[in-house]
Amino acid sequence: MGRSFTPGVTPPSSPSQLAWWFAFSKNRLLVYDESPAYRLPLLHDLSELNCQPLRIQFLGHLDQQPCYAAELSSEEKTPAGMAFVSLRELYSQLDDDLFAIAGRAVQIVEWDRTHQFCGHCATPMTQLPHERAKRCPNCGLVNYPRLSPAVIVLISRGEEILLARAARFPTGMYSILAGFVEPGESLEEAIVREVREEVGIEIQNIRYFGSQPWPYPNSLMIGFTADYANGEIVIEPEELVDADWFHKHALPQIPPKLSIARKLIDWFVAQPSQRPTSFE
Amino acid sequence: MGRSFTPGVTPPSSPSQLAWWFAFSKNRLLVYDESPAYRLPLLHDLSELNCQPLRIQFLGHLDQQPCYAAELSSEEKTPAGMAFVSLRELYSQLDDDLFAIAGRAVQIVEWDRTHQFCGHCATPMTQLPHERAKRCPNCGLVNYPRLSPAVIVLISRGEEILLARAARFPTGMYSILAGFVEPGESLEEAIVREVREEVGIEIQNIRYFGSQPWPYPNSLMIGFTADYANGEIVIEPEELVDADWFHKHALPQIPPKLSIARKLIDWFVAQPSQRPTSFE
Repeated sequence: MGRSFTPGVTPPSSPSQLAWWFAFSKNRLLVYDESPAYRLPLLHDLSELNCQPLRIQFLGHLDQQPCYAAELSSEEKTPAGMAFVSLRELYSQLDDDLFAIAGRAVQIVEWDRTHQFCGHCATPMTQLPHERAKRCPNCGLVNYPRLSPAVIVLISRGEEILLARAARFPTGMYSILAGFVEPGESLEEAIVREVREEVGIEIQNIRYFGSQPWPYPNSLMIGFTADYANGEIVIEPEELVDADWFHKHALPQIPPKLSIARKLIDWFVAQPSQRPTSFE
Repeated sequence: MGRSFTPGVTPPSSPSQLAWWFAFSKNRLLVYDESPAYRLPLLHDLSELNCQPLRIQFLGHLDQQPCYAAELSSEEKTPAGMAFVSLRELYSQLDDDLFAIAGRAVQIVEWDRTHQFCGHCATPMTQLPHERAKRCPNCGLVNYPRLSPAVIVLISRGEEILLARAARFPTGMYSILAGFVEPGESLEEAIVREVREEVGIEIQNIRYFGSQPWPYPNSLMIGFTADYANGEIVIEPEELVDADWFHKHALPQIPPKLSIARKLIDWFVAQPSQRPTSFE
């Protein structure tokens, strides 16, 4: 039976309880390395590992256990028997509920790190006690944790899908198109613009698929499917090195199961083949 | 025929062209007041109005016309024959394409205003030349315009919908539930949490409806419908003063047409009545 996570901002008043510690150095999580598995530390305090966190944020409770996020200096020594591991590597290596909290934790640590000073007037920010927010005592600016909404779209043409390779991808890997939403756009407008910019084609029948937090470091992926309408593929050379139509039964290397990109592709591949229903 | 807006960050090299100026003081747009209509200034430069902008951002082109956003001091005198008007009041008072650009402009002005200094180390930020981004010359932090994704959900129970009143609403107005997405959540998880927190009920069959930028100051509203599952309404008193089920033909005062809340409600009201299809 799954444990239940209750987000919170006010830490428990009795600090003597064992707690889950999500301690990051440069976005890598501190875990016991019990190869091939990893284990998250359950401690009264990070001092038990001789770690001196720069900043701590209370996250909430997992069942009765408090959960804390901490930022460690990039010079922090790795405690014996432990390792700093990226969240991507930890996928399916930690319990699902701890992995999900780690995704929250890394975003809150990054938000804390990058909102120490007011962006308007450079005054040190004050953390508000009852919500996840910081306020400038000088000009009143309030900052909440930042999320970057991004759209991702599977474009199909009959039994084929459009896949593209960005230069930054691992060798040989292709994926579907994605991009950040800009101010003033709806999600649908962002998709149309992004597809035009990256491959120069037009699409139609945009349909919602699902959404997924993507804490690398703070994206919110919103997935859609769409049908090809018209145009020839012309790639944007600053973003992409290749883009093409691939038959669903002859796909190149695609992203791992963790991603919504892969969920969209797997969903499309699992659809029954379309047969013409008319000869017109 | 509609004009076409092409976003951009690099202003035209010849500055002698007439341009659309979206000049804001405290999020209110400077327009010619030609009661009952308003008109946006088309100028070579804001100095023609004797305005001294604190900051300027190039937005892109509307057809051939450059568009600029500017922030004016809150002490700026209102030029003769003009007025500072909120975007909500301008809805349907400006051309649709100019109104849409104004929604972009206000977000970029607010981003510019609140990202003058690095949130990590308080160093003055440098604007990047070829993308809408600022970079810290000391620690390398990069900031893009911030968007705050929010979910909004119409919950129905047969012919009734759930409407709630927040204390901050205009007197007598009710709307559907909405809230910001938190780090680590999918959109669907955010909806379930928000509904539980605000009215204590459970929902099912969450379906996507549509999305809309909501530049007050930087939200991206993502709309859904859902069916009531179980539970009694218990309002969160810090957020709401009332919440109840309303028959679709006996609604209280609801939000104006501009909003996705209203589009969701109008859509539901326009649905054919559900008749039982079986006696079981």
